[in-house]
Amino acid sequence: MSSLKMSASEIMSLLTETFPQQAKNFGIDELSETSLVVRHKIDDSHLRPGGTVSGPTMFSLADISLYILTMSRIGPVSLAVTTNCSLDFMRKPEAEVDLIAKTRLLKLGKNLCVGDVLIYSEGSTKPVARASMTYSIPPNS
Amino acid sequence: MSSLKMSASEIMSLLTETFPQQAKNFGIDELSETSLVVRHKIDDSHLRPGGTVSGPTMFSLADISLYILTMSRIGPVSLAVTTNCSLDFMRKPEAEVDLIAKTRLLKLGKNLCVGDVLIYSEGSTKPVARASMTYSIPPNS
Amino acid sequence: MSSLKMSASEIMSLLTETFPQQAKNFGIDELSETSLVVRHKIDDSHLRPGGTVSGPTMFSLADISLYILTMSRIGPVSLAVTTNCSLDFMRKPEAEVDLIAKTRLLKLGKNLCVGDVLIYSEGSTKPVARASMTYSIPPNS
Amino acid sequence: MSSLKMSASEIMSLLTETFPQQAKNFGIDELSETSLVVRHKIDDSHLRPGGTVSGPTMFSLADISLYILTMSRIGPVSLAVTTNCSLDFMRKPEAEVDLIAKTRLLKLGKNLCVGDVLIYSEGSTKPVARASMTYSIPPNS
Repeated sequence: MSSLKMSASEIMSLLTETFPQQAKNFGIDELSETSLVVRHKIDDSHLRPGGTVSGPTMFSLADISLYILTMSRIGPVSLAVTTNCSLDFMRKPEAEVDLIAKTRLLKLGKNLCVGDVLIYSEGSTKPVARASMTYSIPPNS
Repeated sequence: MSSLKMSASEIMSLLTETFPQQAKNFGIDELSETSLVVRHKIDDSHLRPGGTVSGPTMFSLADISLYILTMSRIGPVSLAVTTNCSLDFMRKPEAEVDLIAKTRLLKLGKNLCVGDVLIYSEGSTKPVARASMTYSIPPNS
Repeated sequence: MSSLKMSASEIMSLLTETFPQQAKNFGIDELSETSLVVRHKIDDSHLRPGGTVSGPTMFSLADISLYILTMSRIGPVSLAVTTNCSLDFMRKPEAEVDLIAKTRLLKLGKNLCVGDVLIYSEGSTKPVARASMTYSIPPNS
Repeated sequence: MSSLKMSASEIMSLLTETFPQQAKNFGIDELSETSLVVRHKIDDSHLRPGGTVSGPTMFSLADISLYILTMSRIGPVSLAVTTNCSLDFMRKPEAEVDLIAKTRLLKLGKNLCVGDVLIYSEGSTKPVARASMTYSIPPNS
């Protein structure tokens, strides 16, 4: 029996309802008690000159990945907010290839949730970026 | 005589040429040898439900601010890349108010450029976010 | 009338009582409602080969600086804990010169306190390191 | 045949020679092409009131871990310097239990080396801290 509070499709429905503009960019490739893989679909609006994906695109993928992971564990928390983020940009992402994010939950506390994310260009084994994120969970959730 | 290698209008022309989609969101309110103030114009595409500005919007403002500051000191460096970024999100930005970023240059080395940024909702004295950014400067620039 | 809850000497007494081993390394050069300057006295135990000051020494100065600033505003909070820290090491500190930290309080919230710190070798105007710190404040304090 | 440039014992010899004061605190429990486990021996000098290990102790363990990993891949690089560090402190380490750090190498470039570290109290499966570190590698090494 799963300890997940929400399934991938329940989370995608909630995201689509709450952030209709953004949610269409994302897909959940895998969600289990031990792993989360989120896809950022890449189109021209995410590219930068020089044939690469923009920094804000990578940031938004890392941000939504930990948000998805948090919701899968504690249920819908519309008020959770990102309080801190640290990013290392290590390699140039390929243009016109989706980004794939693999997220680990490191702490799920009463007030703070911490995780980290490795981001890849799909098909590559070397990460393009690393992110760690802290979410603040509101007292009443 | 100024030690700035590029003026605000020269930098905006270069940004508009290089990143036409993004550049129209930004304006340089102030650029001197000791200060840089960059504005992110906010429209519906930058908002989040709950009446606030999205995290990626704040990230992109911090990122472009240090890029502008670097170019003002060393001239056009099309290949400079962000290698690291740390962000603290401290308060909820107001919707439909521009974001204002004040940037300090902390180090301009041969290989690395480091600065930090305070981001405000226009008209407020309490920062909504703090960012520090590191840029890698390519050897031949 | 000052809005400070504790003076520099009250804070130093508390630190000496609580952390006798560490406190003797530090001094508060300046504490007002708008500024905090903390000194880390440097002796051989803080040096690294090559004539410089160790990274952990700079970390501990940044950490105690925000702790002092937090206490000056909310009074003795023995349970406040550092939850996040981001550091940029920009220049090599001089050996056998004290380190001087200038700290800004960016947010003093109910749960989280955020500030940033510039660290200098005494007598120099170029910072050797930059730090941002987040403290978690326990609910009952 | 191993692609490691230095073995655990060669690295410990070099550390002992270069940093005699610090090196005695550390041990390399495991070093292979795919993993690195470093131990920080804990004694009274590393403790804080309240029965926990100090923040600077965790910082120094993260810092030396990535230094060891870098040397194992590129050989002795006495001039490599830490340029950036981001730390999340997630749980209170146990006093009088050694700290164990597991390090991943994420990028080994010509100029920059990036890795991240999870730190545990020995015997526990929940990390007490997470760190990401960037090293700058001097051009001539």
